[in-house]
Amino acid sequence: MNQSAWAYPESFLLPKGWQAGAVYAGIKQYGSDPRFDLGLLASDRPCSVAGVFTQSVICGAPVTLCRNKIANGIAQAIVANSGCSNVAMGSTGIRNAHQMAELAAKKLNVDVDNVLVASTGVIGHPLMMENIEAAIPNISLTNDGGIDFARAIMTTDTVPKYRAVKFNASGYEYTVSGIAKGSGMIHPNMATVLCFITTDAPARSNWLQKEIRLVADVSLNMLDVDMDTSTSDTMLLLANGAVGGDEFDDCHPAISLLHSAIEKVAISLARDLARDGEGARTLIEVRVENAKNLADARKVARTVVSSPLVKTMVTGRDPNFGRVLMAVGRAGATVDINLLSVWIGRYCVFQHGTSSNPEGCMISNEMDADEVKIKINLGLGSESATAWGCDLTEEYVRINADYTT
Amino acid sequence: MNQSAWAYPESFLLPKGWQAGAVYAGIKQYGSDPRFDLGLLASDRPCSVAGVFTQSVICGAPVTLCRNKIANGIAQAIVANSGCSNVAMGSTGIRNAHQMAELAAKKLNVDVDNVLVASTGVIGHPLMMENIEAAIPNISLTNDGGIDFARAIMTTDTVPKYRAVKFNASGYEYTVSGIAKGSGMIHPNMATVLCFITTDAPARSNWLQKEIRLVADVSLNMLDVDMDTSTSDTMLLLANGAVGGDEFDDCHPAISLLHSAIEKVAISLARDLARDGEGARTLIEVRVENAKNLADARKVARTVVSSPLVKTMVTGRDPNFGRVLMAVGRAGATVDINLLSVWIGRYCVFQHGTSSNPEGCMISNEMDADEVKIKINLGLGSESATAWGCDLTEEYVRINADYTT
Repeated sequence: MNQSAWAYPESFLLPKGWQAGAVYAGIKQYGSDPRFDLGLLASDRPCSVAGVFTQSVICGAPVTLCRNKIANGIAQAIVANSGCSNVAMGSTGIRNAHQMAELAAKKLNVDVDNVLVASTGVIGHPLMMENIEAAIPNISLTNDGGIDFARAIMTTDTVPKYRAVKFNASGYEYTVSGIAKGSGMIHPNMATVLCFITTDAPARSNWLQKEIRLVADVSLNMLDVDMDTSTSDTMLLLANGAVGGDEFDDCHPAISLLHSAIEKVAISLARDLARDGEGARTLIEVRVENAKNLADARKVARTVVSSPLVKTMVTGRDPNFGRVLMAVGRAGATVDINLLSVWIGRYCVFQHGTSSNPEGCMISNEMDADEVKIKINLGLGSESATAWGCDLTEEYVRINADYTT
Repeated sequence: MNQSAWAYPESFLLPKGWQAGAVYAGIKQYGSDPRFDLGLLASDRPCSVAGVFTQSVICGAPVTLCRNKIANGIAQAIVANSGCSNVAMGSTGIRNAHQMAELAAKKLNVDVDNVLVASTGVIGHPLMMENIEAAIPNISLTNDGGIDFARAIMTTDTVPKYRAVKFNASGYEYTVSGIAKGSGMIHPNMATVLCFITTDAPARSNWLQKEIRLVADVSLNMLDVDMDTSTSDTMLLLANGAVGGDEFDDCHPAISLLHSAIEKVAISLARDLARDGEGARTLIEVRVENAKNLADARKVARTVVSSPLVKTMVTGRDPNFGRVLMAVGRAGATVDINLLSVWIGRYCVFQHGTSSNPEGCMISNEMDADEVKIKINLGLGSESATAWGCDLTEEYVRINADYTT
């Protein structure tokens, strides 16, 4: 991906009461930003917390740890590293994840029970605990340290990913910010993604838990790079309430503003992750409309966006809509080809069951862009869904054939 | 794939009473063998027939036609083309498929109801009926015409695929032969595959129908190139009984010989298809043992063999077994990581939940081969399954980004 075509806000401040920082601990031996591989993200007070995690039955020790730690709805900090995922390491893995939390708790002077852990990188190798122990004290935390933290969790990502949204409610200005990583091993049902969303709004953990599922389902769970599901997927949502005001829940008059802010941050990050997919040149957005039901809309959108043949159709800037039909057909949804229409960008390529004989070269020109939109109208009902992915390039193969244990 | 490393029998005779032939009709504008694109495969008498087809809800007109035609259990010939799949063409597609059968029936002087049709190639374009009408009379049929027929159904395949097995029973010598194509859009649950298995043994169509499901489940349904399922998948099994003898069914004393012959042909063709996957350099065989149940064994084998990260691990000759664990974890099967062991070739890389610290360079050398075997022991039960796929190379991307509508 051409970085210049995809600009981030130049400044990125964490919500009130949040600080972050990162160092290089010598764990990450590869990747596009070798300056940082160990980071801390911390609140000045305990927060409400909620999380969703990988659906793989083989999950990393940090995932097991986090699932336990957030059960009481309270957390205050996250320590995260790249270069080693601490997966498939048996009891050593659990012990090391615990120790990482302890080292961070000592550095931050917070309760170890409130320190969450996330690791991403190679599977089946032990965490270098001596490096982590030596490096953690050197992390300096600041309110604008989020970008360094975002760099510390990058693996094959080419850019750090961070987004923030502000909103006003009842005389208070609240901030929601998100930091994420993920470039390969990305597939619906939580991709190889770490995603940490923080806010200074006050909210109860049971509302956050409902909210994070809702938001994950329209953002990270609609994302695909390569069909593979990571063992380390972690999405966390933390609210420290540092700005004050009434606690947000479904009865709060401005609840829709907080929900929109969280959703906007999560969807922006999902798009950023798709756009920076390994080897990607083009973001693909697939919009399915008029499905019989929501499950069908989601299935069709995710199947089309993750089809290797649709991806390579975009790579080749070739409006071969037959491949879109093929993917729609295998999605497992109710489809009537005689009611089905397909658009690539502005052009309708297939209408109510037959080719609409589009001008191939004009569509091909339109596809020569940073982003290609495919729209599918199933003509059956009223439900819709959107999924994001990226094209499949020779660079993807090079990256993954060369990425060495 | 280096063709020299993968030798076919030099001679390939169809079973007794079977003939085939092919011509170039001008339909196929691309592909590695442009000499043939329209073929006939015919028996000198009506046969018992059974078939399995794509599970896509969008299927080609030839698939619809075949499903109807084989309902009575009788067929005598197959007319097949490459270059155009006759999919998503509405009523024109059905009319053209019918006409193709009629033209073949006239040429062969057989009942049009007994002529099956198969088409493979680009979706959403009309069949060039004038070309087919002009070309069919020029096909000359011979008992050794199977290889030309195999060439006529190739799309991006680099070699024609044909296998034959003979067996003796009750004083008769029977032959089972198979012809197949498929190189991309290949995924479990019938790949983008045409596969025609013929025999000169006598057998009832209800036995054949049971048999073809059984055989598809351990051959073509365990095959993956790129996760995409074709709209045109067709596997047919035809028995003309030309050799004579008692009709085969479950009570026939030599039924296991016929079953073995059909299974051997189908599995050989599945392996041939995997090996010739678009851009492939290496056949990957994934064997899952000691699964809790057969469904789990099959799911794990198919998920591992179709994982892009496992494929690129083989491309890079990198024994990064963490990717195998990742794929096992997301397969949706019962897995206990503490009982799980993984082998790459002869080397155990993960044993009962922990890395067995294998010698990376030795495994890497072993992986530098035409075929890489991955074995997974789930340690839970007694069921096993085998799946076949291929590595993912930059050439796959080039082929599919350049394949033009």
